[in-house]
Amino acid sequence: MNENYSLLLNELKELESLKRNADIFFLIIMGNFVFFLQPGFALYELGAVRPKNVVNVAFRNFINTNGNGNGFCGLQYFGLVDLPDEMMAQCFFQYTFAAIASTIPSGVVHERCSTIAYIFYTALTSGFIYPIAAHWVATKNGWLHQLGFDDFAFSGVIHAMSGATCLVAGYLTGPRMDRYSPDGKRRLIQPHSFSQMVLGAFIFLFGMIAFNAGSQGSISQPGDGLMIAKITINTLVCAATSATTGLIYQRFVVNRSTGYWDHASAINGSFVGMVAICAGCDKFQCWGAFTLGVLSYLFYLVVQVAVEKLKVDDVVDGISIQVSGGYFGILSVPLFKEGGLLTNPSKNTAWDLLINAGGGIVIMLWSFSIISLLYIVLRYYGLHRVSASDEHAGLDMALHREKAYEFCYALDREKTPVCLPL
Amino acid sequence: MNENYSLLLNELKELESLKRNADIFFLIIMGNFVFFLQPGFALYELGAVRPKNVVNVAFRNFINTNGNGNGFCGLQYFGLVDLPDEMMAQCFFQYTFAAIASTIPSGVVHERCSTIAYIFYTALTSGFIYPIAAHWVATKNGWLHQLGFDDFAFSGVIHAMSGATCLVAGYLTGPRMDRYSPDGKRRLIQPHSFSQMVLGAFIFLFGMIAFNAGSQGSISQPGDGLMIAKITINTLVCAATSATTGLIYQRFVVNRSTGYWDHASAINGSFVGMVAICAGCDKFQCWGAFTLGVLSYLFYLVVQVAVEKLKVDDVVDGISIQVSGGYFGILSVPLFKEGGLLTNPSKNTAWDLLINAGGGIVIMLWSFSIISLLYIVLRYYGLHRVSASDEHAGLDMALHREKAYEFCYALDREKTPVCLPL
Amino acid sequence: MNENYSLLLNELKELESLKRNADIFFLIIMGNFVFFLQPGFALYELGAVRPKNVVNVAFRNFINTNGNGNGFCGLQYFGLVDLPDEMMAQCFFQYTFAAIASTIPSGVVHERCSTIAYIFYTALTSGFIYPIAAHWVATKNGWLHQLGFDDFAFSGVIHAMSGATCLVAGYLTGPRMDRYSPDGKRRLIQPHSFSQMVLGAFIFLFGMIAFNAGSQGSISQPGDGLMIAKITINTLVCAATSATTGLIYQRFVVNRSTGYWDHASAINGSFVGMVAICAGCDKFQCWGAFTLGVLSYLFYLVVQVAVEKLKVDDVVDGISIQVSGGYFGILSVPLFKEGGLLTNPSKNTAWDLLINAGGGIVIMLWSFSIISLLYIVLRYYGLHRVSASDEHAGLDMALHREKAYEFCYALDREKTPVCLPL
Repeated sequence: MNENYSLLLNELKELESLKRNADIFFLIIMGNFVFFLQPGFALYELGAVRPKNVVNVAFRNFINTNGNGNGFCGLQYFGLVDLPDEMMAQCFFQYTFAAIASTIPSGVVHERCSTIAYIFYTALTSGFIYPIAAHWVATKNGWLHQLGFDDFAFSGVIHAMSGATCLVAGYLTGPRMDRYSPDGKRRLIQPHSFSQMVLGAFIFLFGMIAFNAGSQGSISQPGDGLMIAKITINTLVCAATSATTGLIYQRFVVNRSTGYWDHASAINGSFVGMVAICAGCDKFQCWGAFTLGVLSYLFYLVVQVAVEKLKVDDVVDGISIQVSGGYFGILSVPLFKEGGLLTNPSKNTAWDLLINAGGGIVIMLWSFSIISLLYIVLRYYGLHRVSASDEHAGLDMALHREKAYEFCYALDREKTPVCLPL
Repeated sequence: MNENYSLLLNELKELESLKRNADIFFLIIMGNFVFFLQPGFALYELGAVRPKNVVNVAFRNFINTNGNGNGFCGLQYFGLVDLPDEMMAQCFFQYTFAAIASTIPSGVVHERCSTIAYIFYTALTSGFIYPIAAHWVATKNGWLHQLGFDDFAFSGVIHAMSGATCLVAGYLTGPRMDRYSPDGKRRLIQPHSFSQMVLGAFIFLFGMIAFNAGSQGSISQPGDGLMIAKITINTLVCAATSATTGLIYQRFVVNRSTGYWDHASAINGSFVGMVAICAGCDKFQCWGAFTLGVLSYLFYLVVQVAVEKLKVDDVVDGISIQVSGGYFGILSVPLFKEGGLLTNPSKNTAWDLLINAGGGIVIMLWSFSIISLLYIVLRYYGLHRVSASDEHAGLDMALHREKAYEFCYALDREKTPVCLPL
Repeated sequence: MNENYSLLLNELKELESLKRNADIFFLIIMGNFVFFLQPGFALYELGAVRPKNVVNVAFRNFINTNGNGNGFCGLQYFGLVDLPDEMMAQCFFQYTFAAIASTIPSGVVHERCSTIAYIFYTALTSGFIYPIAAHWVATKNGWLHQLGFDDFAFSGVIHAMSGATCLVAGYLTGPRMDRYSPDGKRRLIQPHSFSQMVLGAFIFLFGMIAFNAGSQGSISQPGDGLMIAKITINTLVCAATSATTGLIYQRFVVNRSTGYWDHASAINGSFVGMVAICAGCDKFQCWGAFTLGVLSYLFYLVVQVAVEKLKVDDVVDGISIQVSGGYFGILSVPLFKEGGLLTNPSKNTAWDLLINAGGGIVIMLWSFSIISLLYIVLRYYGLHRVSASDEHAGLDMALHREKAYEFCYALDREKTPVCLPL
């Protein structure tokens, strides 16, 4: 029996070790997928700008990824000299989130934002605004957490926060020089590559499933498996519903007479749904994810009108997507979750709604204020955007002395290649 | 001893829970990889069309992904109100398969298919034809399953089925207006971006490895690990062999005199091999995968000639790939598996071959009939393709009022950007 | 008690089986990620060449992937008839490494290398040079292993080896015809698509994290989880640090007066860091990864100058990256690891440094000699590069009779599409 017992203890130890390894493996894999959102965003933004700014957009996304790697991981575990080994997988997973938090807002001000504004803006977001908001919401001692603020995969902490950031940055940077005609009419600025945009959008869908599932944080505890499956399905259903809503609305309401199918509405719709479902993907039944998909798109339409009224020029429509999806996502949790306000109206559930509604506002005000302060300083010194001549020429030649494309081609052996400086 | 016993029971429970979590984790990860086939297909098809149809192809692939998410997951678990939690990971994995099943055939009729035909065609495929065929083959009560039809990762249920679908759709839609000269000669229609095609092809290789390995369905049972390793290697070997066969055949037979290396043959070869290995990847030793790689490519050449004889215009060569790879894949299982007809000729093994040969025909007839019915109706009302003027102008401007690319570029600060409406 | 005992034994068996499955799952997933480096390299190289050589680059990368699949997996387990099942996951993982080992050097000689040189060169690398060097270092009986040569994820065996290979191939192939002006001045050859390059660079970052973590080889043993987390963080920190060093150096030293931000320096910096960290990613604390990131970039600058002195024309700057990152990576292990020469100077640690320094030289000489022999033969028969007229026309039309892009576009329904043979 003694032998049995020691065998048993040994086995228990092995099982514990296997569970720890499984959790880390889970975090690393999910972190890798979330990391892959970086090329997704980069591609979407690259495609959305004009060819004269492609190198610059690629540059900014690439240094953002690396800068955050340095800042978030490097400093954190360098500074502490020896970060406990147990925290390393967590640290990597959180790095991927912080990098996303600062990548999202940067798209809004492309094609005219100065390098220094970009650096301050993204460093502040991932190094200060986001970590503090995340601390409020996701740690035991966080004041919003203690009040009962419920935001599972950060519709509020990342997306609503980014939305507010984007709004300030977009507004205080001002529109691109060609965006409005002298009489104030909005002009179309044609994205240079639809192929790149749609590849980016697909990667976004792919990465956000892991973003939400990975937020479960472990795979070894009873119920973890079922939870990540539920999260995955909810994420997919909400994004797909929102995309479909957008498609139908644009085709059968806006373009009823022309019969045009608007591609952007499907892509933006899926973005809105993805953003909105983050907060409650662990708590909804399917009808919740579905309803949220429909309503968040409608809310997005309202926010979009408001943003256009403010004459904010947003290269990737990020403000409307983040604000509407992010904030409506936070609201949706107390409303649509099992036992939430809709199915179980009571003082308690009303209080939950109040907390989420108020907490979302606080988070947005938090980033709004910091970024406003930053931009007031930047504008005072005229550092918030590049010169008009640089903007006209494009940031690629102006800031990098590089151009994104060149097509030189000869169709047969005799001819000299023709070069088009595209 | 009592204490020991309860400790032991507790541990057993933990182990069971860990195993369930591992299975779900496996399905979700593999499902994510299979999901990633969607941008793979999108890119391959985007690259294959002309620039005037790029937005449309992207649009269709994007709404296909989302529409299936809605239909397959949304309806299924919405309708049942509460899908048992245990089924959610399964549901997600199956969604990724259904989405593939309807994405594949859509490539054939690009550049002239109407939106309504596209919607009916893909919805019927993923919502009706595929699930029913899958039910026949993969559930205990399925009649083909009970007869002994053997198709592990759906060479037949997805690929041969799609091939038949493609054939009808391609034939009844008719060729693109520029495909044949007035005297009936086939003209080259140049794909607009080779880079996009090859990226798509690489993603296809990547995703299909997970497609086959994920079909094992679990990772926690004894032997699961070895099985997914075997599947992975067989998939790689068969695809690589088929690609190499194509390459060698084209270079040293077809282009013997000119010495040209045909890139398409390597890509299409790898596609054929990938498709063919699905059915038997769990049962072959290496020689089976290898032989299948060689023979399926040769069979593909035969089918390709037949398709060209029929003057079917296939944008992505999908008919030949799916029909040959899919059907030959089904045939290969009873022939090449361990203890199969080739190594062990007997009444039983001959019967196995007969069942697989016949079952494959039934599945192809099934999709052939449904899609024929659909297209007869569509053609009757003239809804099967866009108007000639829309086709001439390109579907991007005609249906979406958007263009895929614009290159405006200024090489130095003084010059005004030049815009090429590419 | 007997019952308890048999229950216990049964459970032990189940646990063992689960652990084996977990290990295989780990290797397959990591192998999949490493496989995904193939499109990463392909994209980077596609973007770096001129449009007249895009099809050829895609072709070469695609057949390299498939050829290695055939050679490495097919032959290995075909030849042995029945490779023990336990080795299949290993075999797949090693295939992905061998494919990388031969993909890397091929970029250097794009746009003028002949097909036959390319085939011999890559087949020799992945089928002979790499496996033998890997055997020396990574097996128990390997002579370098027995001497204590320490190269965890193959900074030396893959990257320094490739660097030497690249150097010979680049030097003996000679520069592209337009690379140097008649008076010997280096001319800029503009990459044709920055978007493709940056997407490739992102995929490289993504894949290399798995490359290093996967080198741990198992996930079921105590400590495996912590180790892969540590490896992931070290990889990220070193790459990010090296990228940042490059960025700062170029902006504030080289371009101090103009203020240009050099994008290539960030990308190449991250490459150098990724390559350098392979050897010691399992043994460094953060300061090691950080210091290595800075120093390896500086070493890269030195090597780059030397390569330019030799007038070697390197399409992707692969020689400098591989030689500097690879060799400095090997040196860094005995220097910066815990208890290494820097923190613990002693005879033993000095000996470690000597072994790594010398072993790295031996590996580089090994590939240097074999590839030199190959190129001497190839040059003797004039087979090392394509004809001048083929090079001028571009390899796409000359070798494949295909062109990579064509943009035909009509902006409205009335106009005839305009075709630009880009």
